[in-house]
Amino acid sequence: MIYLDNSATTRAHDGVIDVVQDVMRNVIGNPSSLHGLGGQAERLVTQAREVIARFVGCDTQEVLFTSGGTEANNLAIKGIAKAYQNRGNHIITSSIEHPSVFEVCKQLENEGWKVSYLPVDQTGRVRAQDVEKEITKDTVLVSIMHVNNEVGSIQPIHEIGQLLKRYHKIFFHVDAVQSFSKIPLSVTECGVDLMSVSGHKFHGPNGIGFLYKRRGVMLDPLLTGGGQEFGFRSGTHDVASIAGLARAIVQAEKERKAFLMRSRTWKEMLIDRFRQDLSHFTLNGSLSACSAPYILSISFPGLKAEVLVHALAKRDCYVSSKSACSSKLEMPSRILKAMKKTDQEALGSIRISMGFDTTEQDISMFAETLIDVVPQLQHVMKVYTK
Amino acid sequence: MIYLDNSATTRAHDGVIDVVQDVMRNVIGNPSSLHGLGGQAERLVTQAREVIARFVGCDTQEVLFTSGGTEANNLAIKGIAKAYQNRGNHIITSSIEHPSVFEVCKQLENEGWKVSYLPVDQTGRVRAQDVEKEITKDTVLVSIMHVNNEVGSIQPIHEIGQLLKRYHKIFFHVDAVQSFSKIPLSVTECGVDLMSVSGHKFHGPNGIGFLYKRRGVMLDPLLTGGGQEFGFRSGTHDVASIAGLARAIVQAEKERKAFLMRSRTWKEMLIDRFRQDLSHFTLNGSLSACSAPYILSISFPGLKAEVLVHALAKRDCYVSSKSACSSKLEMPSRILKAMKKTDQEALGSIRISMGFDTTEQDISMFAETLIDVVPQLQHVMKVYTK
Ligand SMILES: Cc1ncc(COP(=O)(O)O)c(C=O)c1O
Ligand SMILES: Cc1ncc(COP(=O)(O)O)c(C=O)c1O
Repeated sequence: MIYLDNSATTRAHDGVIDVVQDVMRNVIGNPSSLHGLGGQAERLVTQAREVIARFVGCDTQEVLFTSGGTEANNLAIKGIAKAYQNRGNHIITSSIEHPSVFEVCKQLENEGWKVSYLPVDQTGRVRAQDVEKEITKDTVLVSIMHVNNEVGSIQPIHEIGQLLKRYHKIFFHVDAVQSFSKIPLSVTECGVDLMSVSGHKFHGPNGIGFLYKRRGVMLDPLLTGGGQEFGFRSGTHDVASIAGLARAIVQAEKERKAFLMRSRTWKEMLIDRFRQDLSHFTLNGSLSACSAPYILSISFPGLKAEVLVHALAKRDCYVSSKSACSSKLEMPSRILKAMKKTDQEALGSIRISMGFDTTEQDISMFAETLIDVVPQLQHVMKVYTK
Repeated sequence: MIYLDNSATTRAHDGVIDVVQDVMRNVIGNPSSLHGLGGQAERLVTQAREVIARFVGCDTQEVLFTSGGTEANNLAIKGIAKAYQNRGNHIITSSIEHPSVFEVCKQLENEGWKVSYLPVDQTGRVRAQDVEKEITKDTVLVSIMHVNNEVGSIQPIHEIGQLLKRYHKIFFHVDAVQSFSKIPLSVTECGVDLMSVSGHKFHGPNGIGFLYKRRGVMLDPLLTGGGQEFGFRSGTHDVASIAGLARAIVQAEKERKAFLMRSRTWKEMLIDRFRQDLSHFTLNGSLSACSAPYILSISFPGLKAEVLVHALAKRDCYVSSKSACSSKLEMPSRILKAMKKTDQEALGSIRISMGFDTTEQDISMFAETLIDVVPQLQHVMKVYTK
């Protein structure tokens, strides 16, 4: 099997599975319990928080565990919107955010908020000066993702963070779900107040993630109850998954540099091969340093991405059309449209995404397969081309 | 180790751990992906939904997976409040709900909602007629738990459900976290519109649960994004935990009857022993059919529950004072106060709660230990008694 859909979800690292299993089998307590077993569970949660805080470069109290990236994004944006509604009612975001940011903004618009959706250039990047242009006296929050999940474009978080330092009343939220543990981002240097992370995108468990929340930033909690996570996120701790998440970060710390280097080489290799052997294809995004090396989006105008994905799956190669969440809707991707791609390009786009466990053999076999499959499909079905 | 704190959390069943591990290791796809691996993951989610729907006696589309009981309660109550705010602004609940219901109601009060907190009798039960008395033309929701987590009292859900059938515009939510898989509750017969369930309370995984939502009932989602769970709860599915949850239900289906019988015997046995060998103790709740047989709350006025819990933990016996969520606050339990217990009784209360894996030996050894420890403590510390 050649799995190149790591931006949708990754295979959990063996060490992570072992930790999850071990905790499920041997640690029975609820961290909120008084007795010794609760203490044991609590220590595991504390240790995990320390591992994460060290990696992020923050205090342990700035790490709030959530059920994943979607919850972290919802908590950050709705939480700020409600806690600071007296400050203003304007949010700045981009037109290429994940649905768990985009739809939240749409929901807030229904409740009277104003939202500016920044455009992106041909490579899928917002411009920091566009952020500044949209700022009004009512702006409460800027929410911009670090790495885009469909095309891999890296947003100018540092630049945006620098300019926002001049606006003390505006919070800065970064959806780092596709970059965390891979591409470094210093929350202090970049002036990030809130950052969302999800475990299953870097070989951690599913159903667990966290929100980095800078000390002093208030949030209206989404989940109220027992008061866990310093009152910002109630619910019994999922100790096994929390420990597994920390284990995945420890692993990523070791692997990330080599991973970035080899995935950059592979991305270039793939593009070279495709340029040589495939006709009618375009690259969505770029090969520059402004693009995550582990995500490659390419377009075959005239082909239907779904058909290509299925044809590849028949050969045991797994990639995706658009992002997983929206892949079942047959509409041109909102992200590719924002990048001014034609409908044909957008409908014929596939995403190839690598994980820490991707091998050189995966890449070369995938290249062979794609080069074999595409011309056949181009020959038999010219659905949108003429 | 004698673990009698199963109302806080249970040890995952071995079969559940195996399923979680197996899915983590072998099923890599995201159910929202188009390709074959996504299909495999989706089938597991569908199968789990079917197992649950069969057990609950509902349609598969009426099962919404959440990250646990806290989220299910928040989603039910906030979701109804927001979706039906034009109908009225009044909620009826009890004074003995779990914080994930109680604090949500408090939060809604801050937003202009009116909430009636029903009293309970000495055994910790609300009266159906009290529900009816509180109904006004603005009542939108009645939220009453099935089994109370601190004293085990079983609420008259069937009676309340019957009377609510005459009020078509009022929704009925039941927090069944402490009863589900153990004490049957027919959502159709009881006219329940929403029911919250959490996996880790019946030997399933932590961080997973579901909300039963009757077809046709609207909810404003708490987590917006990719549109999973029929649009009511976005976020990538935690396939391993979902499969584990279903596995726990299959197990419970086999074990529940025998469990209820033996725990009833043991509860009576414990009370008999304590009556014989311990002085100054009272039972919180009752031994009747209106009390869950697997939860036993007893009070030693004059003792501090925390001290007793620690003394028992030293002997490798684990029980709790109050419920896990609030056990670190040294305040008399809100539930016991609602039952008109004195502060002394409330502060000297421990909860003994059994799981499917509790053995007769656990029970008899626990009885011996308690009978040994309590008089020693009563002798040395008479903190509140005089
Ligand atoms: C950029 C981005 N943000 C947020 C999410 C949501 O995270 P999760 O799958 O943990 O809900 C995803 C992936 O689905 C994503 O790619
Ligand atoms: C009655 C009751 N409702 C809700 C909850 C919350 O469920 P969870 O621990 O899954 O968040 C609990 C347990 O903590 C409970 O006992």
